[in-house]
Amino acid sequence: MARNKKAAIVVGVDVGGTKVMSGVVDPRWKVLGRSKKKTKAHKGSEAVIERIVGAVEESVEAAKTDWDSIAGVSIGFPAPLDSEKGVIYSAPNLVGWTNFPLARTLEKALNCPVVIDNDVNMGTLGEKEFGAGSGARNMIGIFVGTGIGGGIICEGKLLAGRNGTAGEIGHLVIDVNGPPCGCGSKGCLESLASRNAMARAIRAAIDRGEKCLLAEEFKKDNTTQITSGDLLDAMEKGDKVVKGILKDTSRYLGIAVGSLINLLGPEVVVLGGGVIEALKSYMMDRIREEAEKFSLPNARKGVRIAAAKLGDDAVFMGCVASGWERFKVARGE
Amino acid sequence: MARNKKAAIVVGVDVGGTKVMSGVVDPRWKVLGRSKKKTKAHKGSEAVIERIVGAVEESVEAAKTDWDSIAGVSIGFPAPLDSEKGVIYSAPNLVGWTNFPLARTLEKALNCPVVIDNDVNMGTLGEKEFGAGSGARNMIGIFVGTGIGGGIICEGKLLAGRNGTAGEIGHLVIDVNGPPCGCGSKGCLESLASRNAMARAIRAAIDRGEKCLLAEEFKKDNTTQITSGDLLDAMEKGDKVVKGILKDTSRYLGIAVGSLINLLGPEVVVLGGGVIEALKSYMMDRIREEAEKFSLPNARKGVRIAAAKLGDDAVFMGCVASGWERFKVARGE
Repeated sequence: MARNKKAAIVVGVDVGGTKVMSGVVDPRWKVLGRSKKKTKAHKGSEAVIERIVGAVEESVEAAKTDWDSIAGVSIGFPAPLDSEKGVIYSAPNLVGWTNFPLARTLEKALNCPVVIDNDVNMGTLGEKEFGAGSGARNMIGIFVGTGIGGGIICEGKLLAGRNGTAGEIGHLVIDVNGPPCGCGSKGCLESLASRNAMARAIRAAIDRGEKCLLAEEFKKDNTTQITSGDLLDAMEKGDKVVKGILKDTSRYLGIAVGSLINLLGPEVVVLGGGVIEALKSYMMDRIREEAEKFSLPNARKGVRIAAAKLGDDAVFMGCVASGWERFKVARGE
Repeated sequence: MARNKKAAIVVGVDVGGTKVMSGVVDPRWKVLGRSKKKTKAHKGSEAVIERIVGAVEESVEAAKTDWDSIAGVSIGFPAPLDSEKGVIYSAPNLVGWTNFPLARTLEKALNCPVVIDNDVNMGTLGEKEFGAGSGARNMIGIFVGTGIGGGIICEGKLLAGRNGTAGEIGHLVIDVNGPPCGCGSKGCLESLASRNAMARAIRAAIDRGEKCLLAEEFKKDNTTQITSGDLLDAMEKGDKVVKGILKDTSRYLGIAVGSLINLLGPEVVVLGGGVIEALKSYMMDRIREEAEKFSLPNARKGVRIAAAKLGDDAVFMGCVASGWERFKVARGE
């Protein structure tokens, strides 16, 4: 689906579990227009496709640009996928996406070239191009939210790996005797340092009878859901349970960062996602300290460990960076 | 130090803690001549340089080739180093090597271009070019001996990382509450699954009064040194202590392999080194089993987990592969 050769604007789209964000970006990386919609993931793939198409169209309208100048749409999707074929393998947190041909479906709906990639990989690329990893040739992105995702930049390029699944930093085992992980194994970083893991630890403390400001939150909805804002709130009010758990969480993250420095020799490790975004002032120093303890002197020399800078924009900006390259190549320029 | 443009033979040298092996290899990867000498590492860098020079000269003589047809000498050295500058950072197991300009020193002694690289990285490259990883674009090499080293091939190239130190698989933390590691942190793979770790575990079992065929070995030299051959011998005689410890060792290695599959998405993971070489028939199945348990379905699909094929030749053959590329580039061809 070749476009006008002069088409140079890319639409980047961050499809999240709760919201879809679309941004229209020109070749000088200026954001010309944006749009945000609820994902409505529980309604299944058809509804989500509709939301994506709606968000893209609204953002193009907001950008006051015409479709002829758009090279393509580049999607960041929260699932393992085949980026070459444009197919979602499966989406554990969304309904109805197994072996779903997302790129082709959207190309038909939008009448425009579409590429897809993993959202966390795109977030890593966004931070590398425009954020805390700017200029790095070797970088690791770690995003801590409900779960933990990551991306790896090797010699300037995003590492895809054989099945396009590389970068699963959340599923590094760092405690062989640790708690079970959602993936089926145990002691993965995600089972120790994600927001879900923190919620589990807080609930356990409350159940043991420890006093915690979040006790009411847990009683209210009877699940382990809790927001990064709740955690920040508790920290600011001096909650001891949350403070202790945040310390452990930072320690686990620092240990993983140290291991990854030994393994990959990056110039910079960028930590982002909702938990870091909200709590970085309480976490980053301890993460750096532990990473130093758990890395080899020659490997850690000069490595920066930094909080992400782009916040919510990281994924769609990474999509634009990737889209630029992929659409250019496809057009043989 | 440019050579005759037609020079196409490379000398690969594996500098080990106990022996130096040199191989002269033609452009069709035929080994024309070999030589082996004791390293005499305890005598310091000057003595080792002499051994390296001697081994190279002997192997060139054995190859019945003349120096004009040799493009250069490519060294694999057991230490973290700066491969661009040709300088050893430090060699924890050897005497007198801190900030040592190895490439320059050997160039003077041999009157020939010399490049250096980490020995385990070269072993990984050797297995990728001629061994169990042949044809892979994404591969991980793990070498289990006294310690544990590794190398990572990303998209066909050896990953160096910022300081040339990438690939330290032995210093992935997989048990945050594990034993102290020689590197100063704890619970690293090396502290759990190297031959030294096995020796420690065997000694502890003996000290607890468990019956073990290796008890005499430990009494004899009063250190924790033990060879892979001793371990094989004990296994073949049905020693229960060694059997149990080998099972744990394989489990730890499998967990690390699983984590690395999640992280890097390789096509093949190659395990080599003295311990694997001697004991693979007792270890590989269990390593594969654990790796399967500890990796994500999409990541592990189709990944091969294989024992190394080149044995002692892996490092010098990797040096030749690297040397070929580096000398060609330097000669501007």
